[in-house]
Amino acid sequence: MRWCRFQANGKVSYGIIEGTQVQPVAGSPFSRYRRNGSPLPLRSVKLLVPVVPPTFYAAGVNYRDHVTRMAAITGRPGEIPQQADVGYRANNALIAHEEPIIIPKDANDRTQYEGELVVVIGKQGKHIPEDKVWDYILGYSIGNDFSERVWQAADRTMWRSKNADTFKPMGPWIETDVNLDAMRTLVRVNGKEVENFRTNNMIFGIAHYMSKMSQYLTLYPGDVLWMGTDGVPQNVKHGDVIEIEITGIGVLRNPVKVEGR
Amino acid sequence: MRWCRFQANGKVSYGIIEGTQVQPVAGSPFSRYRRNGSPLPLRSVKLLVPVVPPTFYAAGVNYRDHVTRMAAITGRPGEIPQQADVGYRANNALIAHEEPIIIPKDANDRTQYEGELVVVIGKQGKHIPEDKVWDYILGYSIGNDFSERVWQAADRTMWRSKNADTFKPMGPWIETDVNLDAMRTLVRVNGKEVENFRTNNMIFGIAHYMSKMSQYLTLYPGDVLWMGTDGVPQNVKHGDVIEIEITGIGVLRNPVKVEGR
Repeated sequence: MRWCRFQANGKVSYGIIEGTQVQPVAGSPFSRYRRNGSPLPLRSVKLLVPVVPPTFYAAGVNYRDHVTRMAAITGRPGEIPQQADVGYRANNALIAHEEPIIIPKDANDRTQYEGELVVVIGKQGKHIPEDKVWDYILGYSIGNDFSERVWQAADRTMWRSKNADTFKPMGPWIETDVNLDAMRTLVRVNGKEVENFRTNNMIFGIAHYMSKMSQYLTLYPGDVLWMGTDGVPQNVKHGDVIEIEITGIGVLRNPVKVEGR
Repeated sequence: MRWCRFQANGKVSYGIIEGTQVQPVAGSPFSRYRRNGSPLPLRSVKLLVPVVPPTFYAAGVNYRDHVTRMAAITGRPGEIPQQADVGYRANNALIAHEEPIIIPKDANDRTQYEGELVVVIGKQGKHIPEDKVWDYILGYSIGNDFSERVWQAADRTMWRSKNADTFKPMGPWIETDVNLDAMRTLVRVNGKEVENFRTNNMIFGIAHYMSKMSQYLTLYPGDVLWMGTDGVPQNVKHGDVIEIEITGIGVLRNPVKVEGR
């Protein structure tokens, strides 16, 4: 099942995508819902960020190859995380499929995509065993953990390097039925493939992360957990178009602009 | 003017505190509101967290004395922040005035309060000049940035050291009219004063922080910005009661318990 959040005729609602149509619902996938009104052509609606999370979690570094290849390039030792310590991103930075990433005027040219699997929590839970986390997941979406690397290295926190407005594209929708081990994450810049990795090849998997988090914190419906990226991201510039595809979910596409241009 | 959010007769609403009474309103201080129904005795209602923020910002280290005195105690060099890089806390951890802080069973005994001024954003803004930030503030509240110091030193992020459930008491309400330079922050444990500092004695003040943040990110109504703490926090334990008073706002009081006890 494929859930989206969309705007049509000035109204925001959740919808179920069926082929090339969207079936609007009253309510939401996080509570109760019922079909509401006639299906609309998917191409006629504006897709929104599929959920605005109460808390926006991000695993950060979570693929071995990403660490070792980045280390080879920078000449600095790469550090493989020893435990699943989750981090945070910020809601102000979220944008939807097809909305432009706006690079601040004073940013450096080391602005890069990161294609990530997004886990969307569907049910409140605490102290969840690893084999039970799947009952707490509504579905999966795609995130682009867009980053300005000079700020990331220079600032005490990742506030503007990763959370400047528009730096967190998420979408286009939430897919509830996936085969995690079969999925691949592909990144294309202007149509050219620049990354292609096995999505579920994580250092700490979804079950371990969610179970460990839930020993100390309550997961709430709508919370999202971004699972990290693999490979070595490349710089992008004004006019580029970034596509993140995760097989079995879809394609998240966003053009890149520089503020004021 | 003093805004609260409260529950009474199973219903959640915002209210205006007038003496010992709460005047319920329809709407909120962040949009439009009107007086709605009869005033209730303040002592008869359950105060809630005064706002659930879209984004929960925290300045982190922001008082000079805190850095130098902590350094003297730990024997490690203290680092004065060179620029206003804001950090984040998480909504799952928020609790209201009088609700218990629950220390996880496997936490170490270095659990400590941090009394902080909370700035509550009232209006959407970006690229705000320093002398105009005051137009974007609804008012001020009190926060206790409760922390587990062993986890804070050991983990890659502050996910459980500062964001375990119940580790972020905020309240009791929002005061719109304050004299920042006259305010003092006092911390009491079991009635005994353990900290007393000038609230506005920050390394980077409210105007600088908000203006700088807003060059890269949009501030939204309901966002909160916690401004850091001064002094050297002490350990607290099961059965203790922590009060954070900021003169001109009020007192935030929370008992401390250990999970399962």
